Amino acid sequence: MTYRAPISDMLLALNHGAGLQAAVKAGHYGDYDADITAAVLEEAGRFATEVLTPLDRTGDQHGARLQDGRVTTAPGWAAAYRRWTAAGWNAVSGPEDFGGQGLPLAINAACTEIWSASNIAFGLCPLLTLSAIEALTAHGSDALKKIYLEKLVSGEWSGTMQLTEPQAGSDVGSLRSRAERAADGSYRIVGTKIFITYGDHDMTDNIVHFVLARLPDAPAGTKGTSLFLISKFLVNADGSLGARNDIHASGIEHKLGIHASPTCTMTMGDEGGAVGYLIGEENRGMQCMFTMMNQARLGVGLEGVGVAERAYQRALAYAQERKQGRAVGKSGDGMDAIIVHPDVKRMLMQMRALTAAARTICYATAVALDVAARATDPDVRAAAAARGALLTPVAKAFSTDIGNEVASLGVQVHGGMGFIEETGAAQHYRDARITSIYEGTNGIQSIDLVTRKLGGDGGAAVWALLDELSATVKRVEASNDPAFGATGTKLRDALGSLERASKWLLERLVSSPNDALAGATPYLRLFGSTLGGCKLAEEALAARDLGDEFGDSRRYVTLTRFFAENVAVQAPALERTVIDGADAVNSADAVLLS
Amino acid sequence: MTYRAPISDMLLALNHGAGLQAAVKAGHYGDYDADITAAVLEEAGRFATEVLTPLDRTGDQHGARLQDGRVTTAPGWAAAYRRWTAAGWNAVSGPEDFGGQGLPLAINAACTEIWSASNIAFGLCPLLTLSAIEALTAHGSDALKKIYLEKLVSGEWSGTMQLTEPQAGSDVGSLRSRAERAADGSYRIVGTKIFITYGDHDMTDNIVHFVLARLPDAPAGTKGTSLFLISKFLVNADGSLGARNDIHASGIEHKLGIHASPTCTMTMGDEGGAVGYLIGEENRGMQCMFTMMNQARLGVGLEGVGVAERAYQRALAYAQERKQGRAVGKSGDGMDAIIVHPDVKRMLMQMRALTAAARTICYATAVALDVAARATDPDVRAAAAARGALLTPVAKAFSTDIGNEVASLGVQVHGGMGFIEETGAAQHYRDARITSIYEGTNGIQSIDLVTRKLGGDGGAAVWALLDELSATVKRVEASNDPAFGATGTKLRDALGSLERASKWLLERLVSSPNDALAGATPYLRLFGSTLGGCKLAEEALAARDLGDEFGDSRRYVTLTRFFAENVAVQAPALERTVIDGADAVNSADAVLLS
Repeated sequence: MTYRAPISDMLLALNHGAGLQAAVKAGHYGDYDADITAAVLEEAGRFATEVLTPLDRTGDQHGARLQDGRVTTAPGWAAAYRRWTAAGWNAVSGPEDFGGQGLPLAINAACTEIWSASNIAFGLCPLLTLSAIEALTAHGSDALKKIYLEKLVSGEWSGTMQLTEPQAGSDVGSLRSRAERAADGSYRIVGTKIFITYGDHDMTDNIVHFVLARLPDAPAGTKGTSLFLISKFLVNADGSLGARNDIHASGIEHKLGIHASPTCTMTMGDEGGAVGYLIGEENRGMQCMFTMMNQARLGVGLEGVGVAERAYQRALAYAQERKQGRAVGKSGDGMDAIIVHPDVKRMLMQMRALTAAARTICYATAVALDVAARATDPDVRAAAAARGALLTPVAKAFSTDIGNEVASLGVQVHGGMGFIEETGAAQHYRDARITSIYEGTNGIQSIDLVTRKLGGDGGAAVWALLDELSATVKRVEASNDPAFGATGTKLRDALGSLERASKWLLERLVSSPNDALAGATPYLRLFGSTLGGCKLAEEALAARDLGDEFGDSRRYVTLTRFFAENVAVQAPALERTVIDGADAVNSADAVLLS
Repeated sequence: MTYRAPISDMLLALNHGAGLQAAVKAGHYGDYDADITAAVLEEAGRFATEVLTPLDRTGDQHGARLQDGRVTTAPGWAAAYRRWTAAGWNAVSGPEDFGGQGLPLAINAACTEIWSASNIAFGLCPLLTLSAIEALTAHGSDALKKIYLEKLVSGEWSGTMQLTEPQAGSDVGSLRSRAERAADGSYRIVGTKIFITYGDHDMTDNIVHFVLARLPDAPAGTKGTSLFLISKFLVNADGSLGARNDIHASGIEHKLGIHASPTCTMTMGDEGGAVGYLIGEENRGMQCMFTMMNQARLGVGLEGVGVAERAYQRALAYAQERKQGRAVGKSGDGMDAIIVHPDVKRMLMQMRALTAAARTICYATAVALDVAARATDPDVRAAAAARGALLTPVAKAFSTDIGNEVASLGVQVHGGMGFIEETGAAQHYRDARITSIYEGTNGIQSIDLVTRKLGGDGGAAVWALLDELSATVKRVEASNDPAFGATGTKLRDALGSLERASKWLLERLVSSPNDALAGATPYLRLFGSTLGGCKLAEEALAARDLGDEFGDSRRYVTLTRFFAENVAVQAPALERTVIDGADAVNSADAVLLS
C-alpha cells in the first residue's frame, strides 16, 4: 500500500500551526517566496510515492549486508539515492554558496517527514549528511569546506556522525578513540565506534565521517573531546579520490527495525591510523556537536511524525476495506467496513490527532530555528533561538513517542493481520522503535528540557511560550463554536498544569535536583500534550478563518476537540505525577533492589 | 540472561491481592492444602529457568517450519515439551477423573505466568490444549471424553481452537467451513482456517482440533455454527492411532513475534472431508466456545504478565550492570550504573508496578473462576461467576496492554542495545504484541466489558466490586502511614471516576449505544488502573500486617504509592474521556473520510 504526502495537512501545519506564514510576512525569511512551498511539497510527495515507497518493504526484507569489509544496500537503493540527489532533494536547505537551494529549514523539515514516511531507513542517510553539513559549515576551515561541502550539499558524498563507543553511549565524554597530531597538521585516529548509521554503504563514492576522539593531552570527560573529519577515501588536491583511508566497517548490527539502514561498527587504525582533519578547535568537539544537535534531533522527531503518518494511512485504508460485523442498529445480511465501529474510529482518530500534533510541534521548531538564523533583528533572533532550543527536545521525544504509539495502534487496527509481516503494519512498529532511542534517548531529552531549557533561563522561554498558547486558547473560547466541545476548558487546564509543574521544577532544580529529574519524563509529556493541543487549536482557528482553503474546517475543529478531550485532558494528572511522584521514584531502590 | 520466577511477589499476589487465602479459609477450595502453593510455584520456576528459558531465543531465531505438509518446531522444543508433560505440568488443573491433579485454576494461572515469562511461544501450546480440555469436559459426549480427555490432560496430545477464516475474524459468525452429516453419526468437514496456533507441530503424536463449521441447514450467523472435534490422526477403538485425517497445515505465517509458535493455515477436505465429531449440540458451537473463553482470555492476560515480568527482570539486570554517567552530586572518575539515574528508576518502577497490578488482576480472576466452580453455596458460586465474568476482559486487555508497555520500557532502558536483537529485549517487545490482538482484540474486550459485563446485570457486579475496593482504600487511609503518600486520595478519586463513568455508560447503553461503545477502551483502562491500584494496596496492607513474611513491607507500600501517583492518577482524565469523548469519536467520519 502506497503513501501519499498529506499536502493539505502539512501546509496548514506549516503556515498556520507552526507560524511560517506570519514569519514570512514579518520579513524574517527575507525574499523567500512562500508560494513555492506547496509546489515543493507536492513534488517531494510525488518522488516519495513513486520511488521511495516501493523500496521500503524490499529494504526491510533484504537488509544491508557486510561482506569483505564492504556494505551493500538492498537492490535498487543506490539507484534511488542517485535519482533523489540528482533531483536536488539533498540540497533543499543547503547553503547557496556551495550549491544548495537555501530554502528554509521548515521546508526541508516537511520534506524530511515525507522521506521518513515513505521509507524511514532511506531517509536516515541524508539526515546524517545534513548534520555533517551543519558541522562543517559552522566549524570547518575554509580549506575543508572547499573540498567537502559542495559534495555533501549535493549528496554526491554522504556523511556520518561517530560518537558512540561500547562504553560511551549517553555518556559521550567517556569515549576512548585516540587522535595523534601528525607533522602535516592533520591527525591520525585510532579507535572503534559502534552504532554508526550508514557507516559504510554503496550509494555514494565517498563517505565523510565526523568522528569524536581524544588527544593524548586532553582533559578527561566531555571537555577533552575533539571532532575530526575522516573521509572514506582521501581526496586529492584536484578533488579526485585518492587512497582508501584507514577506517572500515568491521561489523553490522542485526536490528529490530530499519533493516535497510546499515548500523556499523567502525574500526580506525588497523593500518596505523585514519587520516583526520580537525573541525573547530582541539578539545572543543562536544561544542561542535551541540550546535548540530538541534537539527539532528528535530530530524528524528520528524521521523516519528513520518512513520506515524504512514501507519495511519495504512490503517485507515485497511479499516475502509476490511469488513467485519455490522454497525450498531444495522441488521440483515452483509458486513460493514470496520471503520463503522466506534472503537476503530477512536483508534484512527487517536492516530491522526497525535500525528497532527507532533507534526506541528516539529514544524514550529523548524520555524524557530529558521528565524534564529535568518531574522535581521538580534532580539528576534535571540527569542527564536531560545524557542528553538526549548522546543527541540519536545519535538524529538514527544514526536517519537507518538510515532511508536501510532504505529502500535496501526497494528491493532489490523487485528491478527497486523501481526503478519506481509501486511506491513508490523514494519512501521519495528522501524519506529529506534526513534525514541537514538540521537539522545527520550529520557535524555526530558532531562535536557528540564535542566537546560526550562532551568537554563529561569523559565523565561517557557513563560513566553505559555503567553502565546494562552492567547490561542482565548481565541478558542471567544469563538463560541460548540463544535470545539470542551477544548477551551481542557487546554486552559493543561496550561495551568504546565505552568505549575514548571514552577515546581524550577524550585526543585535548586533545592533537590533528583526530584526534578524524577519528573522529567512526565513533564515532557505534559509539555508536548499541552503544546500540541494548542497548536492544533491554532490550526483549527486558522482553517475556520480561511474559509474553504483547507476544505471543511469542521474536520480540524473536531480533530482538535478529540485531542483536547483524549490527550490534553491528561495534563492535570501529569502535573500531579511530576510533583507527587518524586518521592516514590527516589525511594525506588527499596523496591528494585530488594 | 535467565528468568527467575518472582515467587515472593507471586505468593503475595495470589494469597492476599487475589484473595486465595481468604477463599481457602472460607472453605471454597474444599480440602486444598494451601501449604503446597509455594512448593508448586518453586518447582515450576525451576523447570522454567532450567529448561524453557534457554529455548526462548533459539526458538525465536529458528522459528517453526512447514515442509511437505508437516511442521517442525525449533531444535530441542519437542524434547522439552515431553519433559514438561512428563513432569505433570500440563495436568495441574486438569480433572482428576482423567489423570489431572485437580489443583485450583489460580495455581495454574501462576504457572501459566511462569511458562509465558520463560518462553511465551512454548507456553502457548498448552494454553490451547487447556481450552480444548475445557470444551471437551463441558460439552463432549462420554464416548469422546473416554478417548481424548486423558491424553489431552496429560499433554500427550495437544489441542487447537479453530475459529478464524479469512473473512471471519472478530466476526466469527461469518465463517464458511461446512460440515455434512455422515451415516455413522460423525461429520465430514470441508474448509480453510487461518491463524491456527500450533495447528501442526512435531511435539506430540496427535493433535485434537476443535473446529467451528456450519451445517448445510444451519441458520445464518453465530447461531448457525457447530463445534467439531477433528483429530489429526483418527483413533482406533483400542486407543491406538489410525489413519491420517483429512486436515493439513497448508501454510505458516511469517510473524512479528512468537516465531517458534507455528501459526498455521489449516485445510480440510482435500480428500473429501475431515472426519469430525460433534461437541455439544448442532448450531450451538458458539455457546460451547463462550464457556471456554474466560479461561483462554485469562491465559492470554497471563501471557501479558509473564512477558512483562521477563522484560522487567532483563531491564533491571542491565540497569545494574551498565555504567554511564554519574549520580547527581557525585564527581570524580568512573561511572555509575544507570540505575542511579532517576529517569531510569522511574522506568523500572513503572515496569514493576504495572506488572504487579496486572498479575493480581489476573490471579483475582482465576480465584473468582475457581470459587464459581468449587464453592458449595450457590449464592457464593453465582457471585463469583459474575465477578469472574466481569474481570475476564480486564484481565485480558489491561494485562496485555501492560505487557506491551512494559516490554517497550524494557527496550528503552537498554538504550541503543535494546534495538539490537542479540540483546533479547526486542524479542519480548515483538512477542508481546500479539497478546493484545488474539483471543479477542482488546477493543473487543472493552466492548464486552461495557455491554455484556457492565450492562448485562445493570451494573450489579461492578457495584459489588467497588464496595470491596472502597473498603481497601478505607484501610489505606486508616493506616495513617505517610509512606503511602497520596495513595488514599488517588485511589478514592479513581473509584469515584470509575463509578461515575460506569453510571454514564449504563445510561448511554440504553439511550445511545454508539456513545457507550466510543468510550469502551478508555473505560477498560480506567477500570484496570483503579482495580490494579486497589489490589496493590491490598497487598501492601497485607505485607504490613504479616511482618516479615514478605520481607520489608516498605517495598510494597512504595510500589503501591508509585502506581497510585503515576497510573491510577489518570482516572479522572479517563472518566472525562469516556464521557466527553463520544461526540468527537462519533463525528470522526468528517475527519477520517475527508
